[in-house]
Amino acid sequence: MNPVLVEAMRGNTRESAHRGAIAVLDADGSIVAAIGDIERPIFPRSAVKVLQALPLVDSGAAEQLGLDDEELAIACASHNGEPAHTTVVARMLRKTGLDVNALECGTHWPYRESVQRELAAAGTAPNALHNNCSGKHAGFLCVACRLGAGLDLRQYAKGYVGPAHPVMRAVTAALQAATGFDLERAPRGTDGCSIPTFAIPLRHLAHAFARVGTGTGLAPGLARAAKRLREAVARQPFMVAGSGRFDTIVMQALGERVFCKVGAEGVFCAALPERGLGVAIKIDDGNNARAAEVAMAATIESCVDLDDAAARFMRGLSDVTLHNWNGIEVGALRASDGLRDALRR
Amino acid sequence: MNPVLVEAMRGNTRESAHRGAIAVLDADGSIVAAIGDIERPIFPRSAVKVLQALPLVDSGAAEQLGLDDEELAIACASHNGEPAHTTVVARMLRKTGLDVNALECGTHWPYRESVQRELAAAGTAPNALHNNCSGKHAGFLCVACRLGAGLDLRQYAKGYVGPAHPVMRAVTAALQAATGFDLERAPRGTDGCSIPTFAIPLRHLAHAFARVGTGTGLAPGLARAAKRLREAVARQPFMVAGSGRFDTIVMQALGERVFCKVGAEGVFCAALPERGLGVAIKIDDGNNARAAEVAMAATIESCVDLDDAAARFMRGLSDVTLHNWNGIEVGALRASDGLRDALRR
Repeated sequence: MNPVLVEAMRGNTRESAHRGAIAVLDADGSIVAAIGDIERPIFPRSAVKVLQALPLVDSGAAEQLGLDDEELAIACASHNGEPAHTTVVARMLRKTGLDVNALECGTHWPYRESVQRELAAAGTAPNALHNNCSGKHAGFLCVACRLGAGLDLRQYAKGYVGPAHPVMRAVTAALQAATGFDLERAPRGTDGCSIPTFAIPLRHLAHAFARVGTGTGLAPGLARAAKRLREAVARQPFMVAGSGRFDTIVMQALGERVFCKVGAEGVFCAALPERGLGVAIKIDDGNNARAAEVAMAATIESCVDLDDAAARFMRGLSDVTLHNWNGIEVGALRASDGLRDALRR
Repeated sequence: MNPVLVEAMRGNTRESAHRGAIAVLDADGSIVAAIGDIERPIFPRSAVKVLQALPLVDSGAAEQLGLDDEELAIACASHNGEPAHTTVVARMLRKTGLDVNALECGTHWPYRESVQRELAAAGTAPNALHNNCSGKHAGFLCVACRLGAGLDLRQYAKGYVGPAHPVMRAVTAALQAATGFDLERAPRGTDGCSIPTFAIPLRHLAHAFARVGTGTGLAPGLARAAKRLREAVARQPFMVAGSGRFDTIVMQALGERVFCKVGAEGVFCAALPERGLGVAIKIDDGNNARAAEVAMAATIESCVDLDDAAARFMRGLSDVTLHNWNGIEVGALRASDGLRDALRR
């Protein structure tokens, strides 16, 4: 039974609570902190997009196509589908000679409601560029461009989301190399954007992010790719999420000291390169927007040496005052005492 | 520790899980089924709007103002803010001589994203009529109209959301009478729409809904009011929620056999008049949209005698196949075996 990590308070009463588990490891695989069950395989979903983007750099595709920081950052993104995002994804696709029709991620209205309303007010409907995964998929198509050099790219790339396609085999190999988890024996599912997803223990995911943050334990090409992707995201944190989003505002505030990425169903991973640590969080009930974010904020507060301003900023994300529609204070979202105690150093 | 009530599956693996508690009682207060802790006080939020609307009928306000089924139903609603909803609320307000400016619920964009987009596409912004609670608040203003007869209504009604206002005192008294729980000693908070909310055990909430469904144990005026409100909602189930919403489609399918009402933070209450039962559910983590609904669907399946078509319909709500953006089946949301076993009769 995992402990309560995050509490939703109404007045002085705990109204709801989120249980979950947190692993913090160093790049040697030593457990620095563990809360709850960190051995149960969980689907990391979009939290591992940076691992899935490693072949984009490692294969030479990024260099060959001249991808810039924005394009590399959005290959690691779950973005808001804002105009700045769709513009960059369209630009990446043009570099391959392909267009939106080559994307196999599907179409959805942007998750952020205000972005939906802006689209609707402009009289437009979303296309695959607005899918939060479109940058990752554009990255896959760049890899296809490299792996299928000399072939008809449109034909070669078709079905790139399938597990047997050379692109997805390269992505899966990178995931396995970074996590050190045997994906052959991992429970398997299909992700929201149609690619395979593998259930991996938090311990392995945190270890992978410690490796991504340090390069330790990765083959040189993957270590170089991880560094390049981290740098790109640190320079263009808007690309990885968007307006008002946790990942964007935290990396805008903390720069290269934190690389963090949310995933669906309450998953959150981070590399903390200064301290050589990796973090992986799963909220049992799958809540991202409030539970995984609050837990990650408290973990960063505990694991990163912050000056007063940065500490105040992060505390505003781990202990959030809630107001109702009239602006009246009604409660709070906050990391549990148990979480803070377990991470105290 | 409450048991798992609802599971989110990806492939054959449980990806996320929702714990919670369920109370099923009859009108005499006998426990027919109990899962998890049904004695801990929880904030019922909007799940008890029908109890908060009892004074609207009991005071004579509904009769005096000639409220129709749509208006009585929307007084019990957490509605979508669709045009049909805002039209009815505006009509109710006109009957009191007041308008949207008298509502103290605050303004928010309608929760349903497609309704937001329709508003945005029409170039309009929401007002207090779009607040999901606007019908309840219009009902409060109707009560004010009755209680403050002969006074300047605009002055008299001002601050009706406050606990000491005669309207809110009448609402609280009805809540106490129906639940039999001493609200003086209940943990207290402020609801999203600014009225007081009291934490009440699931056992008392289920008992209240058994009373609402049968009239047993209520003073004659409250019993009559409960019956009138249930009839209104059964005739106008669209008013209580809206397009695609669980409460609306279940009551459209099952009519007066089920009166159900969702509340924020994973609460769901229902009266099952045919069997003389009341139901109250709280999901620990506060998830409504998938967890509380799936748990309520499974509870209705177990507790109501359904023909094959109705049983199939409800099974589609308690065991939901999930597809991704490309229409590929990726998983399921379903009531746990533990929940079904505990409710088997």
